[in-house]
Amino acid sequence: MGFSFLPKETKFFELFDSQAEKLTAAAKCFSRLAATNGFIEASVREMAGIEHECDDITHDIIDKLNRTFITPFDREDIHSLAHEMDDVVDLIYTIIKRMYLYKLDSNDDLIEFSKIIEESVENVVNVIKSLKDTKQFETLMNYCIEVNRLENAGDLMRDMTIVKLFDNTKDPVMIIKWKEVYQDAETVLDQCEDIVNIVESIIVKQG
Amino acid sequence: MGFSFLPKETKFFELFDSQAEKLTAAAKCFSRLAATNGFIEASVREMAGIEHECDDITHDIIDKLNRTFITPFDREDIHSLAHEMDDVVDLIYTIIKRMYLYKLDSNDDLIEFSKIIEESVENVVNVIKSLKDTKQFETLMNYCIEVNRLENAGDLMRDMTIVKLFDNTKDPVMIIKWKEVYQDAETVLDQCEDIVNIVESIIVKQG
Amino acid sequence: MGFSFLPKETKFFELFDSQAEKLTAAAKCFSRLAATNGFIEASVREMAGIEHECDDITHDIIDKLNRTFITPFDREDIHSLAHEMDDVVDLIYTIIKRMYLYKLDSNDDLIEFSKIIEESVENVVNVIKSLKDTKQFETLMNYCIEVNRLENAGDLMRDMTIVKLFDNTKDPVMIIKWKEVYQDAETVLDQCEDIVNIVESIIVKQG
Repeated sequence: MGFSFLPKETKFFELFDSQAEKLTAAAKCFSRLAATNGFIEASVREMAGIEHECDDITHDIIDKLNRTFITPFDREDIHSLAHEMDDVVDLIYTIIKRMYLYKLDSNDDLIEFSKIIEESVENVVNVIKSLKDTKQFETLMNYCIEVNRLENAGDLMRDMTIVKLFDNTKDPVMIIKWKEVYQDAETVLDQCEDIVNIVESIIVKQG
Repeated sequence: MGFSFLPKETKFFELFDSQAEKLTAAAKCFSRLAATNGFIEASVREMAGIEHECDDITHDIIDKLNRTFITPFDREDIHSLAHEMDDVVDLIYTIIKRMYLYKLDSNDDLIEFSKIIEESVENVVNVIKSLKDTKQFETLMNYCIEVNRLENAGDLMRDMTIVKLFDNTKDPVMIIKWKEVYQDAETVLDQCEDIVNIVESIIVKQG
Repeated sequence: MGFSFLPKETKFFELFDSQAEKLTAAAKCFSRLAATNGFIEASVREMAGIEHECDDITHDIIDKLNRTFITPFDREDIHSLAHEMDDVVDLIYTIIKRMYLYKLDSNDDLIEFSKIIEESVENVVNVIKSLKDTKQFETLMNYCIEVNRLENAGDLMRDMTIVKLFDNTKDPVMIIKWKEVYQDAETVLDQCEDIVNIVESIIVKQG
């Protein structure tokens, strides 16, 4: 197993690596803010910067894709991968912005979510870095399995958190706000799973 | 009208038939639980089993697709079809899980929704079964028209149900919970329509 | 820069122009209703008519696409473009229907949103009309930039509106209703951005 591609096409892998760095930055930013209850205006601006940088890289990938005739793997997979990666950073930005705009204080459940997200993103980043050398097939599949496991953990976490929310919160407005935040947090884990699904399908086609 | 394909490609039709069986099982499970107010933990587990089996079949289709060079119809149509079918089962599972987690009791509107969904799924299953023999073109189109009709009925049903909910429910938390359930129920009918739209486009291309 | 295509293929451009007219009609209808607080049953029926006409055109485009071998640009781009245009009209219809069903009265924020949407749709329509003559490349790109600017304006507008909603509204049911309307209004601007993104990618590929 393994790809063959022209040297200049390594540019795609470099761009995906840059995008992966933004995912790490976003997940780490969220974890830190959740742990320190740091959802202030300056933090939203910091995260907006990361989101903007990731946007630029995504635009570069799509632009390069539209101008390149031979690509290291299927065009539509490159397209989906770039957009799904971008979606993760967008949604983490949305969560941080909402925590600030909704004037919510962090809590243990949000911290727990941020840790699961950070762990999942770490595995996604490893998957992306392995793309350029699929000889380490087994290691790569282990990262994918871990992302699937964390998505299931997030599902359970969201269900339990929303049950607690409905059972323990008197103020319906707080329910509206937190329900949105927790559901978004779980959706980040879905998006991570979508990314490794695309990678798995790329590998099968190359196999 | 009619496809030609290599014998071994019939495997795709078999897999779609298996997926169709899971749609039937999911819709029937939901109908039964709505009619008996049976949204207890054991029912969620039962439905989780169906959802898991459908996941496995979906994975088999995508995997087979990635490994097959010549397919009975466009690759992207097979891909979309498998995922849209899976989405129906996922969303019915989500509705059942929410009824349990939100501690909601079934009512006449939910029963009505479950009946429309069961009817729509029945037609979708007939459409899927007709895929391998498109000579029965007119019968197939009648199933498609019926799915469209039921989607319109569901739209109206959701609108009327949500108006009733806002007009008659004092507790905002109950509004939050039921609004989500009713909107999901209507979305199942949208997904059924998406499936027959894909099939219609497959047939036009083969025509 | 510029396409070459067989004469009969101009039919695609004509169909997209017809779809663009429905976008204009929908945006103008929404603006008028927001300005006059005209969300009555007759208005919903009027907008349902526009939505239905746009549906028919979308169906014509997809049908023509499935029956045409050589297309003026990538099949999947025509497919996405037709569906994204249709989504704009669908969502404006949904907003108008909700204003009526939820018995909401228009306000300054909704009027402001409707103006931004009308402006964005105007630029989208100009982009679509330029598709058949991409020699006016710079003019076309200016329309696209304007749509991006309005999407950012809408983002800010939605954030500020929802903060105001949470800060100033006592009744949680009103928060539920308006939050949905404002978020949908912002999503229309996202959809307009999606459309020009597709057009930009078409142009790069032709470049």
